[in-house]
Amino acid sequence: MKNLLKHARSLQQKKFRDLHGSFLVQGQKVVKEALRSDLHVEDVLCTAEAAERMDFKEYTAVPAHELERVGTLESGNEVIAIVRKPSATPVLDLGPDELVIALDGIGDPGNLGTVLRIADWFGIQRVWCNLGGVDAYNPKCVQASMGALFRVRVDQLDLPEMLDRQHRSGATLYFASMEGTSAFEMRLAKRGVLVLGSESHGLSAEVRRLPGELIGIPGRGGAESLNVAMAASALCMEFTRQRSA
Amino acid sequence: MKNLLKHARSLQQKKFRDLHGSFLVQGQKVVKEALRSDLHVEDVLCTAEAAERMDFKEYTAVPAHELERVGTLESGNEVIAIVRKPSATPVLDLGPDELVIALDGIGDPGNLGTVLRIADWFGIQRVWCNLGGVDAYNPKCVQASMGALFRVRVDQLDLPEMLDRQHRSGATLYFASMEGTSAFEMRLAKRGVLVLGSESHGLSAEVRRLPGELIGIPGRGGAESLNVAMAASALCMEFTRQRSA
Repeated sequence: MKNLLKHARSLQQKKFRDLHGSFLVQGQKVVKEALRSDLHVEDVLCTAEAAERMDFKEYTAVPAHELERVGTLESGNEVIAIVRKPSATPVLDLGPDELVIALDGIGDPGNLGTVLRIADWFGIQRVWCNLGGVDAYNPKCVQASMGALFRVRVDQLDLPEMLDRQHRSGATLYFASMEGTSAFEMRLAKRGVLVLGSESHGLSAEVRRLPGELIGIPGRGGAESLNVAMAASALCMEFTRQRSA
Repeated sequence: MKNLLKHARSLQQKKFRDLHGSFLVQGQKVVKEALRSDLHVEDVLCTAEAAERMDFKEYTAVPAHELERVGTLESGNEVIAIVRKPSATPVLDLGPDELVIALDGIGDPGNLGTVLRIADWFGIQRVWCNLGGVDAYNPKCVQASMGALFRVRVDQLDLPEMLDRQHRSGATLYFASMEGTSAFEMRLAKRGVLVLGSESHGLSAEVRRLPGELIGIPGRGGAESLNVAMAASALCMEFTRQRSA
């Protein structure tokens, strides 16, 4: 038990998530999503009360005060699952009508989780992140995704190279930009990658160098910019409209 | 000085914001927005270094360790403004082509701030909140709005009554709903109120009773719902498209 708790606690850190290939899922709602998903749930740690309430058959009973030390939530650390990361498989080229979201240097795990939730809602099955960005299995991202992480595939990869490859294969690259053409005035390709830059630095020089179309969200107000999740939501809405039209 | 710091610190709490009619604005970026806005900035408390860097003419120099006690940010509490709330004026009926966002029981100040930022981006000038909801002058909301609070007018009011009044005056009420008709299939009125429910409870019974049209965001994925800010962003996108078409 002591070793199990130590193992679980270690997964708060990226280096141990990488080492063990597992991550933490916390809270009743998201743990239930994990159990329903295709991912392998290695263990569920929870209080006996929570297990009864949630009708868990297999779990490890852990006293509440021990769970507090494993969990990262401000409150409600009574159910924590240890979940196996999906196995790494080669990243395939875009399917015939596939739209992928690419995040070029996203820095905030909460924002990444929110983008996953948006992708999931709009039926986008893959999100690509540039190397060196935030870890999708960071507890804050897992929680913000509300289970979307279990359905949307996230790959960390050399984004400029991957985008270049997709462009060569005939996909259209869309770079979200304050200076972009209004999405309403564009005829959006069905096979494409929507690339969003980081909150603070926008798109990297390596990505900007690629042949992409600058796509904008028409705004009339005074806001300097939308954050990456709000921009993703607005642009996915228009992609969805044009795809269903 | 001691009284000023005590006064500033008290504004972390709603009852003192209500009592004094002022609120806190923190951080270089958002304080600059406040100074540029129409609101009355009562005082700027900052370190001498920050004042020089930001080229402030009028400010009260406060040592960094004292500012830490006034500010609520995790880091960067080196510039804090005390700003007068806009004076309460009667809430007017919708203008001829006006779209207003109404939040029916929003509970999270960060979400409210994000919705203000979205409203600001899309040129929506007013946001209505139901009585008893979160305070727009909560520091978390102020910061999440990134200055949008200084441009978008927020009123806390009896929402069911106000919506009823707008409906009687010929405006269309749109209730964001998982079960709503796809926004793409609706011909959206130019004069309307987009009503979004709370993250956890959706629309209140009093609002649902009103004659509104259920509007939905077409999704194909597995996400159970979008949060209020993501939904606002997606729906504002479609309202904007139809208004500009």
